Amino acid sequence: MSHTAYDELCRRQLRLHRLNHLQSIAGWDQSANMPSKGNEARSEAMAEMGGLIHQLATDPQLKDLLARAEQEQLDEVQGANLREIQRSWRAANALPQALVEAKSLAASRCEHAWREQRQRNDWAGHVDGLREVVRLAREEARHLAEASGLSLYDALLDQYEPGMRSTEVDRVFGDLRQWLPGLIQAVGAKQAKEPTLEPQGPFPKSAQRALGEDAMRLLGFDFEAGRLDESAHPFCGGVPEDVRMTTRYRVDSFLPSLMGTIHETGHGSYEQGLRRDWLGQPIAQARSMGLHESQSLSFEMQLGSHPAFVELLRPLIVKHLGDQPAFESANLHRLMTRVQPGTIRVDADEVTYPAHVILRYEIERPLIEGQIEVDDIPALWDAKMMELLGLDTRGNYKDGCMQDVHWGSGLIGYFPCYTLGAMYAAQWFAAMRREMPDLDQRIARGELGAVFDWLRERIWTQGSRWETPELVQRASGETLNPAHFRAHLQSRYLGA
Amino acid sequence: MSHTAYDELCRRQLRLHRLNHLQSIAGWDQSANMPSKGNEARSEAMAEMGGLIHQLATDPQLKDLLARAEQEQLDEVQGANLREIQRSWRAANALPQALVEAKSLAASRCEHAWREQRQRNDWAGHVDGLREVVRLAREEARHLAEASGLSLYDALLDQYEPGMRSTEVDRVFGDLRQWLPGLIQAVGAKQAKEPTLEPQGPFPKSAQRALGEDAMRLLGFDFEAGRLDESAHPFCGGVPEDVRMTTRYRVDSFLPSLMGTIHETGHGSYEQGLRRDWLGQPIAQARSMGLHESQSLSFEMQLGSHPAFVELLRPLIVKHLGDQPAFESANLHRLMTRVQPGTIRVDADEVTYPAHVILRYEIERPLIEGQIEVDDIPALWDAKMMELLGLDTRGNYKDGCMQDVHWGSGLIGYFPCYTLGAMYAAQWFAAMRREMPDLDQRIARGELGAVFDWLRERIWTQGSRWETPELVQRASGETLNPAHFRAHLQSRYLGA
Repeated sequence: MSHTAYDELCRRQLRLHRLNHLQSIAGWDQSANMPSKGNEARSEAMAEMGGLIHQLATDPQLKDLLARAEQEQLDEVQGANLREIQRSWRAANALPQALVEAKSLAASRCEHAWREQRQRNDWAGHVDGLREVVRLAREEARHLAEASGLSLYDALLDQYEPGMRSTEVDRVFGDLRQWLPGLIQAVGAKQAKEPTLEPQGPFPKSAQRALGEDAMRLLGFDFEAGRLDESAHPFCGGVPEDVRMTTRYRVDSFLPSLMGTIHETGHGSYEQGLRRDWLGQPIAQARSMGLHESQSLSFEMQLGSHPAFVELLRPLIVKHLGDQPAFESANLHRLMTRVQPGTIRVDADEVTYPAHVILRYEIERPLIEGQIEVDDIPALWDAKMMELLGLDTRGNYKDGCMQDVHWGSGLIGYFPCYTLGAMYAAQWFAAMRREMPDLDQRIARGELGAVFDWLRERIWTQGSRWETPELVQRASGETLNPAHFRAHLQSRYLGA
Repeated sequence: MSHTAYDELCRRQLRLHRLNHLQSIAGWDQSANMPSKGNEARSEAMAEMGGLIHQLATDPQLKDLLARAEQEQLDEVQGANLREIQRSWRAANALPQALVEAKSLAASRCEHAWREQRQRNDWAGHVDGLREVVRLAREEARHLAEASGLSLYDALLDQYEPGMRSTEVDRVFGDLRQWLPGLIQAVGAKQAKEPTLEPQGPFPKSAQRALGEDAMRLLGFDFEAGRLDESAHPFCGGVPEDVRMTTRYRVDSFLPSLMGTIHETGHGSYEQGLRRDWLGQPIAQARSMGLHESQSLSFEMQLGSHPAFVELLRPLIVKHLGDQPAFESANLHRLMTRVQPGTIRVDADEVTYPAHVILRYEIERPLIEGQIEVDDIPALWDAKMMELLGLDTRGNYKDGCMQDVHWGSGLIGYFPCYTLGAMYAAQWFAAMRREMPDLDQRIARGELGAVFDWLRERIWTQGSRWETPELVQRASGETLNPAHFRAHLQSRYLGA
């Protein structure tokens, strides 16, 4: 058997995949299990491993192997895999080691200080650290742009949403910006006339946990290949063969944890549904952050807050928490779809969430491109918050431009993915309804397999075979089209 | 600052230490958390990492670095650390890679088959696989003996108990063999006249867990640097900064889990008590398997089954499980010290346990040295079981020579450590009583710090500074002396 350069690249990818498995489990454990005094040793161990993985990913021999593999005869799947190997090689090699280290250090300092500065509403104290992080992020964008030929912001965006460009984001966010404020107002006016009963707690943690697990079963989660635990900040980690989801519980309120669990189950199902025969290679991996979010939002919003799905959830809620008037299906649905403009993104509902994302996109893009500076952020934030949601954040940095961990920790170009995900999710369900006109009746009959099969075939098993725009086209028959998201919100929130 | 060869060796050890941290957490997770379908990917990831660690440990540059470091001026602690670095280097380099892989493969096959073969009492099916494992273990012993100048069996034993030799094991086990069968008989006769009340369950898992954690607190376990979870086979894993103990629960019986937890807390306290300023270097590590067992048995047997300690445990038991006649202190103590010869080692009590170990030592040593063959094992087992414990195991391979996982998985030379640990533990408490004549009154007053301080100073913080025999001498003022174990058993079980 001849040993090709492509084979050798695959062998090395498999090795990285296995080492990343250990990083992933150690990271999950750090959030879900680790006692406080273990943190220093864990951080050192993971940093050592991170360095080792970076060393393997930047091995000078790779350049020659990649060049040779390009000359080899590869089938379509191998070709796509080679494209993804090249992408990750470029990403790992585009940045000088000194920049990687400087950014990691600056970001970790800025984020650490931010935890207290935010509490104290201390923008003046925060701004110096943030300026340094942004300076290094601009340098990072410059290196990535040079290596890829993309614009500065697109070079960052492409790390999270391969193939997505800011011209496209401009197009869909520009559309959204036209009708979203009006929709928020219309929904507010409608909901003001619909009184809603509040659920009466307490709701013991053990009952909530059992309810969440039953909801995961209803959604097809495979408990032989994953689990649900607790952490301060819910996430979906682990590896495709062993998905580690987390949630958190509030004894006075069960819906945040339940809907959060349904959200993470979407992420988890995507991972569990990746093609097993490709695992270990980049082509097997989930396509992008936006695509990932499209799965969590397919589960949480498209399906989870669907009036017919609420009917399926209700018996589980009653089973674990007992019955009460607030658990009547129509009331549960009103609770799940309540819209209330607020200053905090992570607490936002489905309708107001995109406003938070547009605001951030309209700040971080010119920030990276050098049209604005860090000192300009608060004034821009306040103006856009008033314009988009009618809320005053002047002087309130804590609940304004200091609320997110992203920028301070060097994560720029990520925010659009949240709303791209919401749009993709709406587009998937629109496509499903075209192909299965009785989809809503099927959901009402509890035949959720129709939804999962569609997502599995069109999204999960496709992995990273296509760049995002092509995957969207193949899955739904058209490119990203914000009209579906608009129609979904109008139908769900205005009954239109 | 000059960079010496010794410094470079330390830097490499630190790297190995950090990578082993990830292996250790992944291994703990595999036992405590991992769902079944995660096993293949986890095993592959850990094998990849194992290979990487082996590669770093056998880097050809190490030979020269070790030679140069030997010429450098080192203080006593550095010298001891260099000795331990050399030890692990020799162990990693003594074996040809092909042998390591062949043994790993044969052992994993043999162990896998053993799980079912044992159920079926199928010695004939087991013997071929075991023969191959023993053949490779003999080869391993030959390589290790060549590298170290030790005899075949001592070369294996030295991996688990550095500095211990079979002449010494012969001496102390020979002593034990003289008086143990008589003692077992005398205890049996005495206990036959002492009726004991059985605790009446059920004992809910959550209550047992809270009881176990309270017992751990009583024993000084630091929950900010470790935790207690569940696994099928209890163990103590993790890392010194973050100790991961496990236990298992039976709803009908709480003492096995409670005493098992106290046992593991001894292992955990040793790890938590290792010198932090040495961590990352071999000198910081726990000395040996026997020493480790001496800590778990110090906690479980010397302290845990001490009549005065039972008085401290009783209120915790009542707090979590309610009161009942069987929880009267004297009855609890009788339950904890009940002696009953049985065929199964892992179920054995403190008094009969050494008979199981002597039996195995007297078989595995001639097996490695070639005086007997695998086919001779059952007859020898049956004869020794009758001689030492008066039990008939003929034809009962399942509860006889097929009961342990050790030999089939290639672990030979390990068994003596269990009983060496019991002897060391008795010796520590004898030394404590010489130095603190009021030790038993202190325990009765709940002043357990006296015990922990002694162990911390003499054992835990010594790490691997000395080879085992010197550590024993320094800690207790004499070499290993089985008289202390005999006196302990006579006092505890015969009131003599």
